[in-house]
Amino acid sequence: MFPGRLHLFACLGLLTAAGLTVKFTHPPQVAMAASAPAYAQNGDMLPPVNYREWIYLSSGIDMSYSPKAAANSDHSMFDNVFVNPDAYRSFLSTGAWPDKTVIVLEVRGARSKGSINQRGHFQDTAIMDIEVHVKDESRFPSKWAFFSFDSPSANGTLIPQGAPCYSCHAAHGAVDTTFVQFYPTLLPIAQARQTLSTEFLKENGEQGFGK
Amino acid sequence: MFPGRLHLFACLGLLTAAGLTVKFTHPPQVAMAASAPAYAQNGDMLPPVNYREWIYLSSGIDMSYSPKAAANSDHSMFDNVFVNPDAYRSFLSTGAWPDKTVIVLEVRGARSKGSINQRGHFQDTAIMDIEVHVKDESRFPSKWAFFSFDSPSANGTLIPQGAPCYSCHAAHGAVDTTFVQFYPTLLPIAQARQTLSTEFLKENGEQGFGK
Repeated sequence: MFPGRLHLFACLGLLTAAGLTVKFTHPPQVAMAASAPAYAQNGDMLPPVNYREWIYLSSGIDMSYSPKAAANSDHSMFDNVFVNPDAYRSFLSTGAWPDKTVIVLEVRGARSKGSINQRGHFQDTAIMDIEVHVKDESRFPSKWAFFSFDSPSANGTLIPQGAPCYSCHAAHGAVDTTFVQFYPTLLPIAQARQTLSTEFLKENGEQGFGK
Repeated sequence: MFPGRLHLFACLGLLTAAGLTVKFTHPPQVAMAASAPAYAQNGDMLPPVNYREWIYLSSGIDMSYSPKAAANSDHSMFDNVFVNPDAYRSFLSTGAWPDKTVIVLEVRGARSKGSINQRGHFQDTAIMDIEVHVKDESRFPSKWAFFSFDSPSANGTLIPQGAPCYSCHAAHGAVDTTFVQFYPTLLPIAQARQTLSTEFLKENGEQGFGK
């Protein structure tokens, strides 16, 4: 496990050393019909197959809430975050997430030498993990839930409400349990609309972080 | 100057130390009407105002074609690349870029400590630079041109055809002078469609890089 690994969500510390090999080799076959969340009869979430055509929010690399390097920190990873277009447009107007918001976190390995590149990092073709943070008010008691996907083509498994990602997002998420502080085009909107959470403002000062 | 700095385009070595301060403080006011390229009477390019709602291709951090660190390498930077949706959909079908392709490179500073993050990097709210690579066959003798934008709201200036970005992209671009080797969702399509350039295949082996 990567105990201190943050990513942009907080649940992907579930990656094991073995998990560093590529999990996903096939393109998705079945998915949400549109960008609204949809579920199987057993409560699993259908995969958001076209999330790469949604709105890009940001990327990070090797983000962690621990000052110490993680055990497997020899392998750098990028996190890319996307949101469904309807939720994005609503956020632009209001600074808040509407019901049926779907935020997708995609993890890719970081490569350094390849083609003419000699330094820094670029992203590998292989996806290492996918996690979804979904707001579905009538479905989840706390409105939001996290799902973990073993493959972009398989249904996602609900992460239980007691998992650390829920308490970490509640305590530190800038807007409505989401890490808007790491989404550079959205943070100024939340600041202007005054939708930053009380917890976040206490932790980061009156204007919040990023000013 | 950052002489060895690659980014995903090759022209942004134009950033000076002074340029590391934020160039852009105002939202765009005038722009392309849609995602097709458009120009002012003097030949400048109109700004692609809504490129953050286009299709995301990839991000890199501190990419460079020089094995040595750049002079100003104490300041890490992310590169985010977007393409207009029409060109993206055409590439998905053909592995090639159609006329009127617009690829936008956005550069943002990388922050490390902020909110609960302690390690790795996330992206700053400030945009440090924007550059466009555009395919406009009837307009440019070599079909493609680069434009540099001093601000997201100002028109872009044509980079002269003799600049190093043109020769570097021609020599090393995986597909039609573009760095598809660094766009993880597009490289497999170019491999499958056999649209990788002869130069790229010579440099990286028969299957090209990324297998």
